[in-house]
Amino acid sequence: MDVGIGVIGAGVMGSDHARTLTDFTKGATLVAISDVDPDRAAAVGTTTQAKRVHPNGLALIEDPHVNAILIASPDSTHEELVLACLSAGKPVLCEKPLAPTTDGCLRIVAAEIATGKRLVQVGFMRRFDSGYIAMRSALRSGRFGVPLLMHCIHRNAIAPPWFDSGMLISNSAVHEIDVARWLLDDEFVSVTVFKCAAPSSGDLVDPQFIVLESRQGVLVDIEVFVNARYGYDVRAELVCEAGTVTLAPQPAVRLRCSGQETSGFADDWRAHFGAAYKTQLKSWVDSIRSGVPFGASAWDGYAATATAGACIEALRSSNTTAIQLQPRPEFYGPMR
Amino acid sequence: MDVGIGVIGAGVMGSDHARTLTDFTKGATLVAISDVDPDRAAAVGTTTQAKRVHPNGLALIEDPHVNAILIASPDSTHEELVLACLSAGKPVLCEKPLAPTTDGCLRIVAAEIATGKRLVQVGFMRRFDSGYIAMRSALRSGRFGVPLLMHCIHRNAIAPPWFDSGMLISNSAVHEIDVARWLLDDEFVSVTVFKCAAPSSGDLVDPQFIVLESRQGVLVDIEVFVNARYGYDVRAELVCEAGTVTLAPQPAVRLRCSGQETSGFADDWRAHFGAAYKTQLKSWVDSIRSGVPFGASAWDGYAATATAGACIEALRSSNTTAIQLQPRPEFYGPMR
Amino acid sequence: MDVGIGVIGAGVMGSDHARTLTDFTKGATLVAISDVDPDRAAAVGTTTQAKRVHPNGLALIEDPHVNAILIASPDSTHEELVLACLSAGKPVLCEKPLAPTTDGCLRIVAAEIATGKRLVQVGFMRRFDSGYIAMRSALRSGRFGVPLLMHCIHRNAIAPPWFDSGMLISNSAVHEIDVARWLLDDEFVSVTVFKCAAPSSGDLVDPQFIVLESRQGVLVDIEVFVNARYGYDVRAELVCEAGTVTLAPQPAVRLRCSGQETSGFADDWRAHFGAAYKTQLKSWVDSIRSGVPFGASAWDGYAATATAGACIEALRSSNTTAIQLQPRPEFYGPMR
Amino acid sequence: MDVGIGVIGAGVMGSDHARTLTDFTKGATLVAISDVDPDRAAAVGTTTQAKRVHPNGLALIEDPHVNAILIASPDSTHEELVLACLSAGKPVLCEKPLAPTTDGCLRIVAAEIATGKRLVQVGFMRRFDSGYIAMRSALRSGRFGVPLLMHCIHRNAIAPPWFDSGMLISNSAVHEIDVARWLLDDEFVSVTVFKCAAPSSGDLVDPQFIVLESRQGVLVDIEVFVNARYGYDVRAELVCEAGTVTLAPQPAVRLRCSGQETSGFADDWRAHFGAAYKTQLKSWVDSIRSGVPFGASAWDGYAATATAGACIEALRSSNTTAIQLQPRPEFYGPMR
Repeated sequence: MDVGIGVIGAGVMGSDHARTLTDFTKGATLVAISDVDPDRAAAVGTTTQAKRVHPNGLALIEDPHVNAILIASPDSTHEELVLACLSAGKPVLCEKPLAPTTDGCLRIVAAEIATGKRLVQVGFMRRFDSGYIAMRSALRSGRFGVPLLMHCIHRNAIAPPWFDSGMLISNSAVHEIDVARWLLDDEFVSVTVFKCAAPSSGDLVDPQFIVLESRQGVLVDIEVFVNARYGYDVRAELVCEAGTVTLAPQPAVRLRCSGQETSGFADDWRAHFGAAYKTQLKSWVDSIRSGVPFGASAWDGYAATATAGACIEALRSSNTTAIQLQPRPEFYGPMR
Repeated sequence: MDVGIGVIGAGVMGSDHARTLTDFTKGATLVAISDVDPDRAAAVGTTTQAKRVHPNGLALIEDPHVNAILIASPDSTHEELVLACLSAGKPVLCEKPLAPTTDGCLRIVAAEIATGKRLVQVGFMRRFDSGYIAMRSALRSGRFGVPLLMHCIHRNAIAPPWFDSGMLISNSAVHEIDVARWLLDDEFVSVTVFKCAAPSSGDLVDPQFIVLESRQGVLVDIEVFVNARYGYDVRAELVCEAGTVTLAPQPAVRLRCSGQETSGFADDWRAHFGAAYKTQLKSWVDSIRSGVPFGASAWDGYAATATAGACIEALRSSNTTAIQLQPRPEFYGPMR
Repeated sequence: MDVGIGVIGAGVMGSDHARTLTDFTKGATLVAISDVDPDRAAAVGTTTQAKRVHPNGLALIEDPHVNAILIASPDSTHEELVLACLSAGKPVLCEKPLAPTTDGCLRIVAAEIATGKRLVQVGFMRRFDSGYIAMRSALRSGRFGVPLLMHCIHRNAIAPPWFDSGMLISNSAVHEIDVARWLLDDEFVSVTVFKCAAPSSGDLVDPQFIVLESRQGVLVDIEVFVNARYGYDVRAELVCEAGTVTLAPQPAVRLRCSGQETSGFADDWRAHFGAAYKTQLKSWVDSIRSGVPFGASAWDGYAATATAGACIEALRSSNTTAIQLQPRPEFYGPMR
Repeated sequence: MDVGIGVIGAGVMGSDHARTLTDFTKGATLVAISDVDPDRAAAVGTTTQAKRVHPNGLALIEDPHVNAILIASPDSTHEELVLACLSAGKPVLCEKPLAPTTDGCLRIVAAEIATGKRLVQVGFMRRFDSGYIAMRSALRSGRFGVPLLMHCIHRNAIAPPWFDSGMLISNSAVHEIDVARWLLDDEFVSVTVFKCAAPSSGDLVDPQFIVLESRQGVLVDIEVFVNARYGYDVRAELVCEAGTVTLAPQPAVRLRCSGQETSGFADDWRAHFGAAYKTQLKSWVDSIRSGVPFGASAWDGYAATATAGACIEALRSSNTTAIQLQPRPEFYGPMR
């Protein structure tokens, strides 16, 4: 029996997920969609499996045909919706952030623990990217010794006009924060954020250069640059005692033309991480069917939000800022 | 309603397809499997959706739960099984070769035309590979002018001990023959095969170097080397008037260790073309549901077998050999 | 004491060599230059060390200040000038071809043998390129087993308007012929030349695809394409029993801009092989001082001209053509 | 007339320079060498042009056959020797550091200004590397907009046992400090140094991660890792408003063998920057002959030492440290 999925939010991410569920996610049937804009929800319904259109997320969560929920609505709605899923005892995959505040994340954590069951996954899709998986596997092989540094680059061609300096961290760099935690099985303890003088960026501090230090003493630096113009580009190099592991760009072809050898960049993160998004949904559905949780937990969602919050404070204060995390509940097991 | 699929053959390719259908092919339900070895068929049944196990392919084809058939049994059985699918009026995806002989292929073509409906697809999965698709798209863009040459490399780490000199062409180079026809919308008219002196290959002529000429005057050269030892490696460069398009290798990561920067090769074609196999099955199921045929047709299957046959003759005679194809039936439309 | 060098020919190649000798060749002093155009010779004299300007090559050869001669005049003059150098007992580096005809080459060989001393070097500069040297060294290491095939690509952005079909072979592909002989320590025994239909090339057969077979059974294929438009591009892959060795392009930087990652091509062979030309001259001067010959010999010059001649015959006849070389004189020692 | 060169110091760097001067530097004659170990000096004399062997650097400087001096003796001797060259009015190329202390550097600057003539060049050879030159040229083209960040990696396979934490900065990272100043035409104003927990490095803080901020607000980060084991590796990416420029590694060949595609690293900086060292010496000799100074000046030597000193203070204090440079004397002109 397929898992009946409801998607909350019919914007860019929600409609992408709806298509992926409809076309590629074996074991799942997309049964319902909702959006604050009912026409937008209905429009997604016509091009996907979602035949039940709900006026809001809470109604969708209560729909008995819906066995599991994917939340892709605005950040500010996440906490309420995830809590409703937990009340309903239904598995939920919530796009990052789990909640915009650490308090909100902790309320979700407490509610999940109260259910006695791991029901929440956070949509940190990079954990399903073949490059990061190969990097993690190389690290786990022991061949390279312990990790020492990780250099990360996160560039977008262009940011929406409403992007502010904090969003470079909470929306963009937060992916590096999560994937580094996952690669290293480690939490961060302090952060420094450097600004550079970019004449064209106005009030927006862009690019930013973030240096995080982990409990085990690994340094993770992140260039986040959301108006890099030339394209969407994500890079990482993990530096270990005996060698390094670097993500390899994966253009389909190389062209030689007009005096140059060229290869293209993806337009945005959806193209770049298209395969990872598919794998994430398939894995989520499999984990629902098997009852074995996988992917980023509510605790990971909390740690990412808390770490990003400290980065934003470091950006504002221009000082090295300590990152204080709550003790990790036993409920979430050891860091893998 | 899902398409009910039956897979004939539970060997390496058949069981791979069965897993892909079960885990990744939305819109399809794998309902049945058969194999000459009933235990092998039953074993695949336990790890996939295939709950109906048939003693042979013909029984599977007649099963009313089976709406469409995937043939992955030995080459010698293909003709009979495809003809049975046509008799039953059921769509069929047949692993290459469509049939080992041109006469067999032409009998299938005649039978398909007699049904009045395009029911046969041949499993030339490279047409679904992102690299070749990008190459074709670059060529169609007009930016590079007309095609002039195509350089192809097809290397396997190791061939099975029973591989003979003809199989380098009919099993391996046949993929380049098909994908070049598809890229160029062109048929080949003559071929020359060169041998080199490889001391370790015994009676097997390996590597071989094949030079094909197309109707439009494009030269396609193929190095096929099935005991290349170092790994599975497929390369191609399309050379046009104003530039070239090259398949880009796609390792997930690069490692720097022990004095070297390294990237790995796939072990074999299944890993290298894993995404293409998934896309092919999804596309086949979509084409069954839409009624719009896609992928390599029975005529493509015939042309590939006939061209490969001429290559084998050229290998044996050491002469340039003409390739004589039957006129293309209107039924199959123009070359795309 | 420096070697006093005279350069015959003040065209593109001659003036380049004059500058290299003046600025970079330790152990040499450029003392003289000549050209059919005395103004051109004088102009080179003003920007280089060459203070003695001669009206013709024979006068330069006789100049007692000239200890060694570099010939960069038109091909048709090479034989007479090299023979004059041999008569004068002076070492000579002759740009390829040694002579345009095999008979001319053999007359030089006979004259050199008569002097009892190796005085002639042919300007096959690729033997001094770090890429080919690394390829040869990898082959000699034994790690890759015996060579089986070599794939070569030789592309120019644009050819001069007076280039004819034979010159693609005698001026361009002849570099691949020489460097393959040197890499493999082997001679070629037969050749087939394929044409493709390039609508824009008029009477000029361009590109051409040449397949050579060596005595030891190695196949060497060469795409030569002198109006490839996009840039100067030379590639090679040597395929051996246990692995392959590929020339690595060497751009100084990679640019990411406007949706692309790009790297540039050299404009022409002089930029691409700039370091090889410098090394060749330094090595030649060192070999004059040490008395130990190095680089391509007169016999190599003969073999290259003879092989290129057979290629031209194969192009004209469209048949596989045998390559008949004279027996190698003991004077030139074994193939390295 | 050649410039007569004397080399002080016959260790690894001095003997390398002596060979380069002898074999490759047109316009120069290596006439003299000195070393504290007279046998070592004499040994270099036997394999190079240096026929005059002096017991110490001061004697060499006074030798009337010596027109210009290259200093490759221990750091602690640099100041005295450069001052002696200035007293003698002879041009000098001093290996970095110009002097180990900023006071020492400033004494040299004052002495040079007193001579009224630019006589001092510091051996920052990266300014002569084709990669950095192409990077600078791309930046100067204006196509990329203003610079924002520069990411630098400096890895050695293994450091000598006597390397201490400060030397990672003063001997290794100082190259990035100089080349970034030169690329950006900018000075640094503050620095932060991060340590990571490398279990195997004992007391040595290795790797270090240095973040410098320039007057114009450019951030330059440097990973310096002198026991990186896998090889010598120098990387840099310059990030600008509209795109980035990355140094391209330049292996001569790529090997495919044993399941991997591999390319090698240089053993050390001498191999990696071999061409840059040759170009630096040629350029120095040309600048002596022309009287037009080129390359890193004494002031650059001072700025590098002062900046490195602030980095070392930042490492020790774990605080962001201001970099206070003296005002730039008019004598040295504007930053290019």
